[in-house]
Amino acid sequence: MMMNVVVTGAGGFVGRELVRKLLAAGHHVTGIDTHESGIPEGARAIAGDFGDAAVRANALAGGCDALVHLATVPGGAAEADPAASRRINVDAMYDLLLEAGVINPGLRVVYASSIAVLGDPLPALVDDATPLSPKMIYGGHKAMMEHAVAMFSNRGLIDGVTVRLPGILARPKGPSGMKSAFMSDLFHALKAGETFTCPVSAAGTIWAQSVRRCAENFMHALTLDCALLPPARAVTLPAQRLTMGDLAAEIARQCGVSPELVTYAPDAALEAAFAAQPPLYTPAALRAGFAHDGDPATLVANALSSI
Amino acid sequence: MMMNVVVTGAGGFVGRELVRKLLAAGHHVTGIDTHESGIPEGARAIAGDFGDAAVRANALAGGCDALVHLATVPGGAAEADPAASRRINVDAMYDLLLEAGVINPGLRVVYASSIAVLGDPLPALVDDATPLSPKMIYGGHKAMMEHAVAMFSNRGLIDGVTVRLPGILARPKGPSGMKSAFMSDLFHALKAGETFTCPVSAAGTIWAQSVRRCAENFMHALTLDCALLPPARAVTLPAQRLTMGDLAAEIARQCGVSPELVTYAPDAALEAAFAAQPPLYTPAALRAGFAHDGDPATLVANALSSI
Repeated sequence: MMMNVVVTGAGGFVGRELVRKLLAAGHHVTGIDTHESGIPEGARAIAGDFGDAAVRANALAGGCDALVHLATVPGGAAEADPAASRRINVDAMYDLLLEAGVINPGLRVVYASSIAVLGDPLPALVDDATPLSPKMIYGGHKAMMEHAVAMFSNRGLIDGVTVRLPGILARPKGPSGMKSAFMSDLFHALKAGETFTCPVSAAGTIWAQSVRRCAENFMHALTLDCALLPPARAVTLPAQRLTMGDLAAEIARQCGVSPELVTYAPDAALEAAFAAQPPLYTPAALRAGFAHDGDPATLVANALSSI
Repeated sequence: MMMNVVVTGAGGFVGRELVRKLLAAGHHVTGIDTHESGIPEGARAIAGDFGDAAVRANALAGGCDALVHLATVPGGAAEADPAASRRINVDAMYDLLLEAGVINPGLRVVYASSIAVLGDPLPALVDDATPLSPKMIYGGHKAMMEHAVAMFSNRGLIDGVTVRLPGILARPKGPSGMKSAFMSDLFHALKAGETFTCPVSAAGTIWAQSVRRCAENFMHALTLDCALLPPARAVTLPAQRLTMGDLAAEIARQCGVSPELVTYAPDAALEAAFAAQPPLYTPAALRAGFAHDGDPATLVANALSSI
């Protein structure tokens, strides 16, 4: 069934992939982002500050059967400017939920949260019972808004699905505001046959999903039967847990270069925050039909296809 | 050790009891509330709108070794005016945490949350693993701010303790904005030897704690070793689970009146929200040294002593 889907952050890394999939599936898409240039052709593009009520109203004015909320001040940027994170990641999102719910009560809203809600350091094992105990501004604000999504869903204003994203591979080159950007930079370096100094150790463990798989999970979330979700409407997305060394070896193999292009100079803070990920079990997400890429070779192939 | 303790909502039902205890223990107390009149004598009283930055600054200007945050737009009032709840229960509290943490980084903050964060209806059993899935505006906003407390604590800005309050007995007569006010009204009626029409059934089960015990729990929270708390810094306070019929019988016995003064005319919404409380297990709070009143006779005696 054709839907009018509004996507915030439509010019971003995950947003572009998702908008293309939505258009290919025959949906009408309205994309909001800071600049029009990143929003894929075929979507109705709304450029502006997502914190501006007029920009949001303009986006919703074309009709909104479903809303995918990806726009965010990312982790590193939020840490550098907590007030900006509060304005966009909390206040503007809260307003958007109210505005969309008034226009179309009970509409499906898919909210991109993050594993940052789980905290830092993580416990020895993460599963669906792990309590949220965020430390980063980004994770704290994402956790706050998970509860707004649950509350508004329980009230029937929206029909919300919160998905917590792990590391998504591979992001475009250049500054992203994400502290975890080194994972993607590794792909770019090896694809170009260049040396790479990895800021976490070869034994460091990450949780990862390709952007292609991630967009498929968002497509699934748009039509998912919410009776399959836990009461709080939030799931940690399935992710593969692998070491940076194994990831580098597989990328090198697929790119036909030597894994010795990579050297390791671990930064203690990055290692603790992004490369000390414990075993991850996500039965709630699996039960609801979400998936990771399947195996490291597929993950790397999917990730390479996006850069 | 004498502390400068700032108490928001110091003129409220729990606030007054707590301020008196703090003063009796030799602490300096600054109380904020809408009107000065309710704040106990002996405290430095700051009257004004807690949403006003100047009022908060005035309260903190006297020094702040610890902060107890009780001020709130309560459940019924929040439901009637969600924007007011957002302004006070979310925005002003967030600002207060930032302001207090700047003045005295790492100060103890005790935050009065509510069992409303757990949702409505509740699952068949509530324990420390029950996910938060609020439905009321009040519960949603309380849940959001539990995460702000956890995040700011994990960052070292504050040293937070969140306690989720069950029904607190017995509130003063008159409009409180609390939908659960009928529990306290029952005390007032029987103490006065008057008939009472109870808006929930005799078999309806509530969770309760006396205001005296509640204030003792707040005193405990002020000096508690936070290593005893769960990672999210939040505990559901221990409460006795009893039926309205058993509660009425015990109040009648202690007041020397007939329990037949009480008739029952259940309202489905109130019954579902406040008198269908499942078994409650609070091992995390017990481990951290919090307690309920012990037995129904003590609960009723403590509650009667406050009215």
